[in-house]
Amino acid sequence: MTRPRVAIIGCGFGGLEAVKALSHADVEITLLDRTNHHLFQPLLYQVATAGLSAPAVSAPIRHTLRRQMKRGNLTILQAEVTGIDAARRELRLDDDQRIGYDHLIVAAGATHSYFGHDDWAAHAPGLKTLADAFAIRARVIGAFERAERCTEPAACEPWLTFVVIGAGPTGVEMAGTMTEIAHHTLPQEFRRIDSTRARVVLIEGSDRVLGAFVPQLSQRAREQLDKLGVDVRTGCKVTGIDADGVDYETRANGTGNETPDGEAVSTHRLHSRTVIWAAGVAGSPLGKALAQTTGATLDRAGRVLVEPDLSVAGHPEISVIGDLASAKSYEHGQGQGEPKAVPGVSPGAKQMGRAAAANLLRRIEGEATQPFRYVDYGNLATIGRKAAVVDLTVPVVGAIRFSGYFAWLFWLFAHIWFLIGFRNRLMVMLDWGWAYLTYERAARVVAEPPSVRTPDSLQGGPRVSTQSRNVPFCPK
Amino acid sequence: MTRPRVAIIGCGFGGLEAVKALSHADVEITLLDRTNHHLFQPLLYQVATAGLSAPAVSAPIRHTLRRQMKRGNLTILQAEVTGIDAARRELRLDDDQRIGYDHLIVAAGATHSYFGHDDWAAHAPGLKTLADAFAIRARVIGAFERAERCTEPAACEPWLTFVVIGAGPTGVEMAGTMTEIAHHTLPQEFRRIDSTRARVVLIEGSDRVLGAFVPQLSQRAREQLDKLGVDVRTGCKVTGIDADGVDYETRANGTGNETPDGEAVSTHRLHSRTVIWAAGVAGSPLGKALAQTTGATLDRAGRVLVEPDLSVAGHPEISVIGDLASAKSYEHGQGQGEPKAVPGVSPGAKQMGRAAAANLLRRIEGEATQPFRYVDYGNLATIGRKAAVVDLTVPVVGAIRFSGYFAWLFWLFAHIWFLIGFRNRLMVMLDWGWAYLTYERAARVVAEPPSVRTPDSLQGGPRVSTQSRNVPFCPK
Repeated sequence: MTRPRVAIIGCGFGGLEAVKALSHADVEITLLDRTNHHLFQPLLYQVATAGLSAPAVSAPIRHTLRRQMKRGNLTILQAEVTGIDAARRELRLDDDQRIGYDHLIVAAGATHSYFGHDDWAAHAPGLKTLADAFAIRARVIGAFERAERCTEPAACEPWLTFVVIGAGPTGVEMAGTMTEIAHHTLPQEFRRIDSTRARVVLIEGSDRVLGAFVPQLSQRAREQLDKLGVDVRTGCKVTGIDADGVDYETRANGTGNETPDGEAVSTHRLHSRTVIWAAGVAGSPLGKALAQTTGATLDRAGRVLVEPDLSVAGHPEISVIGDLASAKSYEHGQGQGEPKAVPGVSPGAKQMGRAAAANLLRRIEGEATQPFRYVDYGNLATIGRKAAVVDLTVPVVGAIRFSGYFAWLFWLFAHIWFLIGFRNRLMVMLDWGWAYLTYERAARVVAEPPSVRTPDSLQGGPRVSTQSRNVPFCPK
Repeated sequence: MTRPRVAIIGCGFGGLEAVKALSHADVEITLLDRTNHHLFQPLLYQVATAGLSAPAVSAPIRHTLRRQMKRGNLTILQAEVTGIDAARRELRLDDDQRIGYDHLIVAAGATHSYFGHDDWAAHAPGLKTLADAFAIRARVIGAFERAERCTEPAACEPWLTFVVIGAGPTGVEMAGTMTEIAHHTLPQEFRRIDSTRARVVLIEGSDRVLGAFVPQLSQRAREQLDKLGVDVRTGCKVTGIDADGVDYETRANGTGNETPDGEAVSTHRLHSRTVIWAAGVAGSPLGKALAQTTGATLDRAGRVLVEPDLSVAGHPEISVIGDLASAKSYEHGQGQGEPKAVPGVSPGAKQMGRAAAANLLRRIEGEATQPFRYVDYGNLATIGRKAAVVDLTVPVVGAIRFSGYFAWLFWLFAHIWFLIGFRNRLMVMLDWGWAYLTYERAARVVAEPPSVRTPDSLQGGPRVSTQSRNVPFCPK
């Protein structure tokens, strides 16, 4: 008898955990990923802000899984899945190859969502992949370079204004770190501009930052952002993004979401040449493909609604896990109250990966599958140097919440701990130790010279001699 | 009186050295570079072969020169120079800004030359910039991934055949390291292919590798390449490169260049999907711009012929240094024999940078300039793990030549020594120590999923199940 064929799409936190959980199983696994690496997304913002190099936050999939590969139940293919045929139990790849399966785990993750404004993407890149991080790094570092080249103060200003949209963990990290770069890394490295005059504006639609945390920690985070010098604007609804900046609206009382209709709305414009999108995520397009072939329902964010055991309704052989799944947590035993939604965080994805693998083995053995139960260990986010918030859920004890320096240390070591590979841990520790002492950013190189966007103010600009242009017009 | 305006184009070894040599001068320097970093090119092949991350071999220009910046005679602009007007003493930048100068040092370096076959560039990338290195890394690592995806042995073979054209130091380093990857890094990480069956072919037009060394060391290098498993083919003239491989000719006696006309020529074809170009360099296009505006002469490789003091004939205010200069070395004093050509290596560029800066200051003081004298300390090249050749020129003692393990250690420490920045030295040492112990390559990630080139053999390929495709057809 041939071994059951298991296809796993995506090697993020969920997919990798599922593969590992099937390490000793008598199955034939094919793991498919578009890239050759597992990405430690919680530290991706560090690549975008030139603090870490790409190899430090990623692990080659083949190297990570080499021991399992030796055991002989795993094939890894770097390939993009372009279609799913649930009736034939077959995946279609980018080169039109087909991969048959008996069991399928879809862990394709999420992408940015611009809430229907896809034209914003060109002006406000989001942060999901290494390529995204490189693009953002090039923009942020390039903006200071462009400011140094400007011949008029009016042209300089938008290059020194950075806007981050969305004050979730990524937005808060980006805004805090960019402020740190402007205030501590770059000063004295420019002749004409004063990098400490750079403005970082963090725009949030709701009335507080880090909405996933309790209000008390949101307040602490807000205070730490203020202290770093981030210009936090809550209650702002973004209505437009173009090459020159951002349009947004505020209600009269300053909160965008929670006021009665009919209230006065004021519109605002921020002139900025560097806008980062950290506001919305949507399930991978594979969710739509899956819905078409299985009849599964998608939620508003394009995530697949799954059964309590993480399978797709009517297709017990297909599970969806991680950011692509709209899953609920079920307490073991009956009558434990309403199931809660599983948050889109890495522990959630990892736990789903293990659960989906366990249910898959149960199905093979002819046993009943079990509902997924999410164990919440808490939540943490960093704001910048020596600034973070931590909300731990400790069994028996309950919630432990703290912020500031110790929260930052806790965040630091937790992230190093969960990094994959001893080498990466060591390198990140060294990089961070060095950065702590020197304020240097280890990865300030930008590979490609940016294609020059010629702002109107520079077109046919005046001929100026080196001498006259050396007058600093952005006064220090 | 205003200070003399000095413009320096390019922050490679030559340009950086010139800026530093003017550190305390009462001049107003504008340093222009297309990128934001100084690149340590001797280790760029390590980035291409995934051994080092990009930040390890590059230094942010502003950070490197921050102390000089504080002294107030330096402005750094990240900009591409698109034109030179020697009559107006003015540079034109990519955004059409003009930079006036009283003295100009052109250190724009070299680019690849495909000897008139520019269509080869798409199929055989060269290695000059970080972007080049990333592109080559993606191709080399991607080739093994593509081989693993192939469904027919015939399609697999060209993905596992790597061709390096040109057996100078870069070509030898690339070929040696790629063999190491195939034989030591990747084995046991693939299911269907045996990476040790990969073939690395090193093609050279002349009759020996490392032609800049004495024949005895070329022979040693050849032996070390053979031992590593590199398929070295000297005396081969490349006549065509396309997406599927390389065409080349050999003369009947096996050497392409040194046989009389009329001898029988045989043609060959190598099927390969990964071809690296390490054969020819040409002066930056700025050389041509300079020739047009000053009437300077270019040599066959597009380099500017300079006067003994490194200036351009008829334009004492313009110097050309580094790989863009066709310069000669003049012994101090008269009657020291024929001046020798300065080789295109980093010590040459650095020495020219210092000499050009010194002559510039002499001109400002109204003194006579001095002819350039190149001090040759020797030459070294690595072949792979524990394999290198060293040819030192020691004053009084004369030439010291050695190869093998100690040459490799010497190469290692010389390269760490000359790296810029303590942090980079430390990181490279750690990376190399780790790699030595584990054979791991620190930077095996590829940021972008490669756009899939669909070879004919895969188009409309058969539908195959996971099960049947797991039969290894490239026998281990």
